[in-house]
Order: sequence, then C-alpha cells, then structure tokens
Amino acid sequence: MKKLLFIYVFLFAGFLTYLYNYHLKEFASSSSNQPQDDLRGKVSEKYVMVTFLAGIDYWKTALKGFEDAARVLNVSVEYRGATQYDVHEQIAVLEQIIAKKPAGIAISAINPTALTATINKAIDAGIPVVLFDSDASSSNVHTFLGTNNYNAGVTAARKMGELLNGRGKVSVVTLLNQLNHQERTKGFLETIYKEYPQIEVVAVKDGRGDQLVSKQVAEEVIKQYPDLAGIFTTEANGGVGVGEAVQSVKSDRQVKIISFDTDKNTLDMVQNGTISATLAQGTWKMGYWSLQFLFQLNHNLASPQQESVSDALALPVYVDTGISIVTKENVEDYYAK
Amino acid sequence: MKKLLFIYVFLFAGFLTYLYNYHLKEFASSSSNQPQDDLRGKVSEKYVMVTFLAGIDYWKTALKGFEDAARVLNVSVEYRGATQYDVHEQIAVLEQIIAKKPAGIAISAINPTALTATINKAIDAGIPVVLFDSDASSSNVHTFLGTNNYNAGVTAARKMGELLNGRGKVSVVTLLNQLNHQERTKGFLETIYKEYPQIEVVAVKDGRGDQLVSKQVAEEVIKQYPDLAGIFTTEANGGVGVGEAVQSVKSDRQVKIISFDTDKNTLDMVQNGTISATLAQGTWKMGYWSLQFLFQLNHNLASPQQESVSDALALPVYVDTGISIVTKENVEDYYAK
Repeated sequence: MKKLLFIYVFLFAGFLTYLYNYHLKEFASSSSNQPQDDLRGKVSEKYVMVTFLAGIDYWKTALKGFEDAARVLNVSVEYRGATQYDVHEQIAVLEQIIAKKPAGIAISAINPTALTATINKAIDAGIPVVLFDSDASSSNVHTFLGTNNYNAGVTAARKMGELLNGRGKVSVVTLLNQLNHQERTKGFLETIYKEYPQIEVVAVKDGRGDQLVSKQVAEEVIKQYPDLAGIFTTEANGGVGVGEAVQSVKSDRQVKIISFDTDKNTLDMVQNGTISATLAQGTWKMGYWSLQFLFQLNHNLASPQQESVSDALALPVYVDTGISIVTKENVEDYYAK
Repeated sequence: MKKLLFIYVFLFAGFLTYLYNYHLKEFASSSSNQPQDDLRGKVSEKYVMVTFLAGIDYWKTALKGFEDAARVLNVSVEYRGATQYDVHEQIAVLEQIIAKKPAGIAISAINPTALTATINKAIDAGIPVVLFDSDASSSNVHTFLGTNNYNAGVTAARKMGELLNGRGKVSVVTLLNQLNHQERTKGFLETIYKEYPQIEVVAVKDGRGDQLVSKQVAEEVIKQYPDLAGIFTTEANGGVGVGEAVQSVKSDRQVKIISFDTDKNTLDMVQNGTISATLAQGTWKMGYWSLQFLFQLNHNLASPQQESVSDALALPVYVDTGISIVTKENVEDYYAK
C-alpha cells in the first residue's frame, strides 16, 4: 500500500516538474522568437489609409493592396477619408487619426499644400507617414508612391500610334488646370511630335473632369474634323463622355479612344469596343508598398550606415507604380472582384 | 482508502490529458508558424549582387544595404562583378551566376543594352532579377532602383544658388556623351535659368570622367573668366581635378565647387574646404531595397488582385533612391566605416 502511494506521489511530482518545464519552455520560445517578431507585426498594430472622396471605386484596389500587405505582415488596417471633395473634412479626419497614435498613416492628399501642417503634426508625434497617389511635396514626408503622369502620357501616345498605324488627326480632352493632367497631356504631345510625324494633334480641349462637358467638347472637335482618327482623354469621366460623343456623332470613321483609369463605366465601354484602350494605374502597388514602407519605419528595420541619416530617409523618395494598358483582351481582369 | 485511490487516478488522468493537450498545442503552434516562416528566409537562400569595376569604393555602401537587408531577412548574399570596365567579363560573370540558380540577382548594368539577352536568360530560368544604379531598360526586368539624375542636377543648382547668394558666373564640367551626366547637366542648367536669373552659365565643358582632363578644362575656364564664382562637376574624378585647378590658379575669388559622389578624395576635399558640397546618391537604399524586392519575388509575397498580372509586376517599376547633400558639417558621416 505504501509502495502504491509512493508511485502516486512520484507521478504527481513528475506532473509538477512537467508543468514547470512547460512554462519554462513557453517563456524561452517567446524570447527566441524576438527577431522573428520583428518581421511580423501584431494584430493590435493598426495602420490607417486616408483618402478623399473616400467612397469612389478608384481607391478599392489601393485598399486591397494595403490589406494584402497587412495579411502578409500580420497587422491591422483601417480605411478612413473625407467623404466629400473637401479640404477641411480631410484635415479633420486626419486630426482624429493622429490623436489615436496609429502605427502608421498612408495619405492621398486632396491638394499639394493644404495638408502640410497636419501631416507634419503626425510626423512630430512620431507616427510614420507615407504619401501615395497625390503628393504633398511641401510636407516633411520623404516618400511618395504614385504614377509618373508624364510617362503615362508617353504610353498613351505610343498606344495611339499603334492603333492608328502611325497616321491621322488626334485630339486630347483633359483638365487644363490640374498638374497631373497637364503632365499626362505633355507626355502625350511630346511623344506624338517626336515619334509620330504623320500624326497631327488638332486640338487640346478642357473637359473639366465632367462627363457632359467632355461629351460636348468631343462632339465639337468631331464635327470640326470629320476625319478625326483618335481622342486621348486624361481622366475617366471625360472618357465616358467622349465615348458617348463618338456614339452620337456620325464621323467618317470610327474614332479610336484612349481613356484613363478603370472604373466600371470605362471598363464597360472597353468591353463593347467604344473605348479602344484605357490606362490602369498601379493602385494595388501603391497600397501594398505603402504598408510595407510604413511597417519598415515602425519596426526600424531599414537603418542606413550613416548615423546622421534618420530612418525615414532609408525609404525611397519616389516610387513609380507604373501603368498598364487595358484592352478588350484583358478587360475582364480589371473588374472589381 | 478507495477514496484516496480515486483521487490519485483522477490526478493521473488529469496528467495524461495535460500531456495530450500540450502536444496538440505544440502541433498547432508549429503549423500556425507557417506564415511566419514566409517572412524569414533560410541561410541557404543566396542572393547575388553583380556590378562592374567591382573593386571601386562606390559599390561599398550599396553592398552594405544589401547585407543589412539580408540580416533582417535571415538570408545569405554574395558579391560578384566584372573587375574591369568590360562588357564581356560582366556577361561571363552573370552566366556563371545563372548556372548556380541563386534565389535572386541585383544587377548594375555596365551599359543599357549589352546585358539584355543574358538578363532575360536569368528571368526565363525563373530567377528573380532587379536592376539598380544603371538600368538595362530593354530587358524583361520590371524594376529599376537608382538616382533620378535630372533631379540631382536640380538639387545641385539650388545648392549653387544658395552658395552664391543667387548671383555670379558658373561653369559645368561633365561627361558630354553619357546619358546620366547629360541629365544631371540638364537639371542643373534648366533650374539655374528658371530660378536664378542673376546666375550666368558661361561654359559647359567635357572633363571625360578624367581627373587631369577636368583639371585642364577648369583651369581654362577660370583663366577666361577670372570672376568665375562656381563650378558644378557631374562626377567624382572631375570634382577632384577641378579642386586641384582651383587650388593652382589664382582667381579673383574662391570658386565654389559642387561635386558628385563620396569617394575618399572627394570627401577629403570637402573636409578641407576645396569642395563646398558633394551630392551623395542613395546607394545604401539601392542595395537594401533591391534585396527586399528580390525576397518578395522569391517568396511570392506580393500578389496583386488581377490574376493576369505576374508577381514581377507587383513591384514598383522605378524607385528613386534620392540625393543628399554632403558639406563640411556632415562629411564625417560619409567616410566608409
């Protein structure tokens, strides 16, 4: 009987030793995980994406990229923004976010200067910040991710050259007073002049980013030049308006349209052949790499040789997220899934 | 007694249950570690950096960035390159590397076209490739990391404007037949014309990337314009030659020199005041982000929404690694450590 009791006590002692070792192991493994943890965030670590006109389709793919990177890095994300095209609303939203001290903020600025003070306030509070899609170059943020608009215009010109076999009259419908649209137009015009001597640009019109206005100016140009062969529109509303104009006005030939971005109306017109090609921006990359960069800053992963160089300076200053061409052949891939 | 036995049996059963749960937990935690491993490579995973004139100081900081990223990601790196300025040698080195099927290759191309076929061979073999510092734009590589040379020229012009208080005669010593130097010169000239109406560019001279030739052309310009106030040289050998010229020729005033890059001779001349400022390229960033990008490709981490978009297209097309200004105040930070 005593022997049996001894065995039970022995087993119980073994149990206690096991228990002790188990907790010891758990402790050891959590400390050896330290370097691994540097590469993997916590779900409590929240990164915020801030836009304006936050409800439009355009941001969906950028947010998808942001979320995809969050999954890879095991962190959380939040999407915020001004619902309207309203500077004060975006500033107010940003102020609320800064007060919560998130792990990082990726901002698309409603205009190049209005957010400067608020953005600098976030940086002074030690919050990592990158800008994407629309820059705020006078702020203290060192990294911008977005489309090189001049190069996008170059791509449009070469696609137009291919569609027209290098000859014919073309027109541009753009937003004359907005910098990114001026750059798209400049890239298009300079490339046509340099590389397509038999293509003539007969008019550059202001569609004011409005579907109806763009339709009207396109109708005028088509009436004035019945042999017009192509129109490049630098933004999506204009593209749809120009598409309607080409459908409504009888011209000598089918006018080839190259548009911009990939909202549903544009993709539908690519699918039914009204628009020959549209230029897709690398919005997924903007979101994905914004979060990767913020994570690097927040975890102090990138630290350059020079001690005087701050961590923020270890990020690239500009990242061109590129352009891809959407035609009838690949349009299916660009519909939101 | 039976009661006591019951308690012992109960405890023993508890012990067995505990043991079972513990192993279950261990199993679960090892399988949940799977994604964590994706973010951390293996030491057997080797990434190769390939340059030309592989022994020069210029590459040291880029390699340091490559190594720093390798430490963060727990992978291995190897440094290779053509020892001479020799196209065939770089091709041969690259062929050897491809044969070993490394995890990824970061290449600085000796010229824009000569390596195209070899680089494409690496890509066809499924090896991730990025280009840094010197691009090979006709290859199938989608990502280039390097200095925006036009912007570097803009930065030089603004620093010159500051040094000269916005007035005086200046000259440029450059390599007239090399694209990156043409762009640096263009950025400098256009910014002077636009922003500094009282600075006059009196001469743009070809220093041929040679210290002695640069010294000679600088001496000529200083003799011709005794009131010359500043010289911008677009590369390092020229900067040292121009520094010697300014020391040897008596001119009406101390000519301010702005040079390029941070080899030891240039830094020494910044320290002793002969060169007022030199422009440091973001070579550490080129190396660091090259490896980060290759790692993302090799581990299929970045995968965009569109199924038609290949993983390589999930990387930025161009990364501007920026420029920083080195003066007497911060020159110590730029000496190799």
